[in-house]
Amino acid sequence: MASIQIIILITLLCQRWCDAGAAVNPNQDAIKAVGNLTKLFVQIDDVSANLTLNSDESYSLSIHAHPQPVAFLHAKQTWGALRGLESFSQLIDATYDGFFIQETKIVDYPRFKYRGVMLDSARHYLTLDVILQNLDAMSYNKFNVFHWHIVDDQSFPFVSLTYPQLSQHGSYTPRHVYTPDDVQMVIEYARDRGIRVIVEFDTPGHSSSWRSIPNFLTPCYSKNGVPNGQFGPINPILNSTYTILEDFFREIKKRFPDQYVHLGGDEVNFSCWQSNPDIQNFMTQHGFGDHYELLEQYYEHNLVTIMEKIGLRYIIWQDVVDNNVKVDPNTVVQVWKTSPSYKAELAKVTKMNLQTILSSCWYLNYIGYGRDWERFYRCDPQDFKGTQQQKNLVIGGEACIWGEYVDSTNLMERFWPRASAVSERLWSSAKVTNVDAALPRIDHHRCYQLIRRGLRAQPINGYSFCQAEYNVVMNHLDRDEL
Amino acid sequence: MASIQIIILITLLCQRWCDAGAAVNPNQDAIKAVGNLTKLFVQIDDVSANLTLNSDESYSLSIHAHPQPVAFLHAKQTWGALRGLESFSQLIDATYDGFFIQETKIVDYPRFKYRGVMLDSARHYLTLDVILQNLDAMSYNKFNVFHWHIVDDQSFPFVSLTYPQLSQHGSYTPRHVYTPDDVQMVIEYARDRGIRVIVEFDTPGHSSSWRSIPNFLTPCYSKNGVPNGQFGPINPILNSTYTILEDFFREIKKRFPDQYVHLGGDEVNFSCWQSNPDIQNFMTQHGFGDHYELLEQYYEHNLVTIMEKIGLRYIIWQDVVDNNVKVDPNTVVQVWKTSPSYKAELAKVTKMNLQTILSSCWYLNYIGYGRDWERFYRCDPQDFKGTQQQKNLVIGGEACIWGEYVDSTNLMERFWPRASAVSERLWSSAKVTNVDAALPRIDHHRCYQLIRRGLRAQPINGYSFCQAEYNVVMNHLDRDEL
Repeated sequence: MASIQIIILITLLCQRWCDAGAAVNPNQDAIKAVGNLTKLFVQIDDVSANLTLNSDESYSLSIHAHPQPVAFLHAKQTWGALRGLESFSQLIDATYDGFFIQETKIVDYPRFKYRGVMLDSARHYLTLDVILQNLDAMSYNKFNVFHWHIVDDQSFPFVSLTYPQLSQHGSYTPRHVYTPDDVQMVIEYARDRGIRVIVEFDTPGHSSSWRSIPNFLTPCYSKNGVPNGQFGPINPILNSTYTILEDFFREIKKRFPDQYVHLGGDEVNFSCWQSNPDIQNFMTQHGFGDHYELLEQYYEHNLVTIMEKIGLRYIIWQDVVDNNVKVDPNTVVQVWKTSPSYKAELAKVTKMNLQTILSSCWYLNYIGYGRDWERFYRCDPQDFKGTQQQKNLVIGGEACIWGEYVDSTNLMERFWPRASAVSERLWSSAKVTNVDAALPRIDHHRCYQLIRRGLRAQPINGYSFCQAEYNVVMNHLDRDEL
Repeated sequence: MASIQIIILITLLCQRWCDAGAAVNPNQDAIKAVGNLTKLFVQIDDVSANLTLNSDESYSLSIHAHPQPVAFLHAKQTWGALRGLESFSQLIDATYDGFFIQETKIVDYPRFKYRGVMLDSARHYLTLDVILQNLDAMSYNKFNVFHWHIVDDQSFPFVSLTYPQLSQHGSYTPRHVYTPDDVQMVIEYARDRGIRVIVEFDTPGHSSSWRSIPNFLTPCYSKNGVPNGQFGPINPILNSTYTILEDFFREIKKRFPDQYVHLGGDEVNFSCWQSNPDIQNFMTQHGFGDHYELLEQYYEHNLVTIMEKIGLRYIIWQDVVDNNVKVDPNTVVQVWKTSPSYKAELAKVTKMNLQTILSSCWYLNYIGYGRDWERFYRCDPQDFKGTQQQKNLVIGGEACIWGEYVDSTNLMERFWPRASAVSERLWSSAKVTNVDAALPRIDHHRCYQLIRRGLRAQPINGYSFCQAEYNVVMNHLDRDEL
């Protein structure tokens, strides 16, 4: 049992909040100081527990004035203690008159064990600094998975040690890459905040940027039967394909500590496969007829067999199970499509006894005028027709922000605090659904947990102000002092 | 005649651009260096000309390798020289291999003499730093008017020396203000970039934040004929109202050097006036019947008479002329409504022989997914049915970004480079309308003129990259070194 003592100078108040929100003038007379809090005890039962899908993030936190002013945080694992420290920090009301906190007793735990954020660093490159900032924001919102959609058709910024040509030829420029040190820094920075990093290498589609490996992508043919110089999805009929994939994912397993990797598997376009005579022959030999989804099955089956062989669990986009690929029972299926019905998809996937996470409602790259976060807030991952056992297979959800119109200039403000609506949905009780009550909470969170900590989080609820506004120059100075 | 010599070390190339865009690999073999440019001569015929609506912004720029490498910029006024220096800067291709420029001869002038940007610092406060950053961006886009919608119902951040209570009681907090020094800094910073500052004090509606001046706003009455504690538009029936307005605008004239002020005049809600028995009596006495637009006319007539008295010209929102107020012939009418038809409104206003600027197509606060800038680009302020004389009365347009969902966290990236589409429409020839040709130009402009100069301008055309991406930390350092 570990015991950590933290010294913080706080004036303890137990009557009421002294500053409930930016627009509320606290009635100072109602506040009665009952003690100075100078100690926060943190007890963690098991500091050695790894950060995994099944980590225990529960904690309890009590703040008392009597007999002695003291704060006590108890968690079974480090990961719960991190959540508790974040809550403790958010309970402190930092005003220009000093720091205040009220007496309280909190017993807290997440509703869902998978609470993810997906960034896309392929359509636009995201600088390391912004990725780290986003991890900060995630921790302030108790997200626990960074799903890193690190490569795609458009670019391959990931520097592989096994296949260095991938980034050498696939990145936008030699500077638009994530070196092994960069990746290691992201993993450690995330882990320090209780965030798992699940990296995605999407195959067999979305793979144009792997073109530097010879004979790996499918050559496409023109109508008159000659190669047209273009390439399609990864070539599923060559044995060498699977050797390359095994080598590559063995490296991934070494470099990313998480038990899970994301295998993608979405949106495989069959037209190039259809054009290729070698693929056609292979289809005939295997009795696939014209059913290219059977070829996709063949590929995915081989890929997941490699994962089982090297000991990696995997998340896949829903397309893989929609195409009837047999997957490992530990597989997590990410539901992302909105039509015909994500609820039917959740029902289907959980009926197959597979774990699932929902993203269909949470594509935050789609922007519109006004309060779109209310829609994110109202979406519930367990709101579909199914048994309790099926509902229990929904392990969470993920806010995604695809990179077509997002790079380091606008990621932070576009994503935050809109993603905070998702984080509350995934952490809090299913009964917490009142949008009107959530609105001032999000505004307060924006001012006090995001902007005051130097993060660009945009206003999402009409006119308002923060006691301390985001200030470009000030923020520079603050950050440089860190 | 002034002559300024600027020393810049540039390798002069005359064959072609060496780097036409971020995604284009220049064929280095096609480049032939023909000289080193070390001098830019600037000749300004009249350095004393003031910055006004009728300033001359034309310039000519020539860059030659023979007989001696030289660049020569000629402008009639300082304001044209500033535009020419900006163009010169944009012609330089700053690569990692050095600086390049091609031989050229440019004769350039704006299509419209009013090319404005409106910011709203009332719904959300904008920090001084962001306002200055935005002026930088404006100058990179040859905008020449900063229309500062400085106060509104929600807050009064402008510190008046005549009526200090306005900001003392009307600002969000004592720190959410623009002091006289702040305002002076904005004016000077703008002027240094050839940008006029036209401040707007919107009356008689949008004026709730003026409530600290006693008996200035109209008391509203409940159905049973007693004051309900609420206040409506400025009270138009009291003589004191006009004394206050005259005092206030005399201060404005002193503090803002521009010949024009923006008087607002939009969206006057009549319900409070209708509820007030004193207003009702006044209406009867003046034979206005139930026509509250006549009362609005009465107010506006008095207001513009004050302007004529103190020697200020004015811009007004279209509502004022829609409500048949007789205005000074020098008035500029800002067309902002989209229905029934802004084209009909442009025709109407110009038929009244009034100058007009268009904003209906350019409310950039309205955001949506994808390439909305194409819509801004396609909108032409002279595209309406009217005579050439009417068309000539269209003096320009203005990109507006209202503050409901915009503050210092997201102004820059939300506005830029979307506003660049408006700036090109307002500067370039009416014949320059090809969206496909504009697209790579805007992308290049974003990377090389905005991001490389440290401004957050978002990607607006799908996946891409900049040779030098916006980098939060790097940018901090750059700015701190300034």
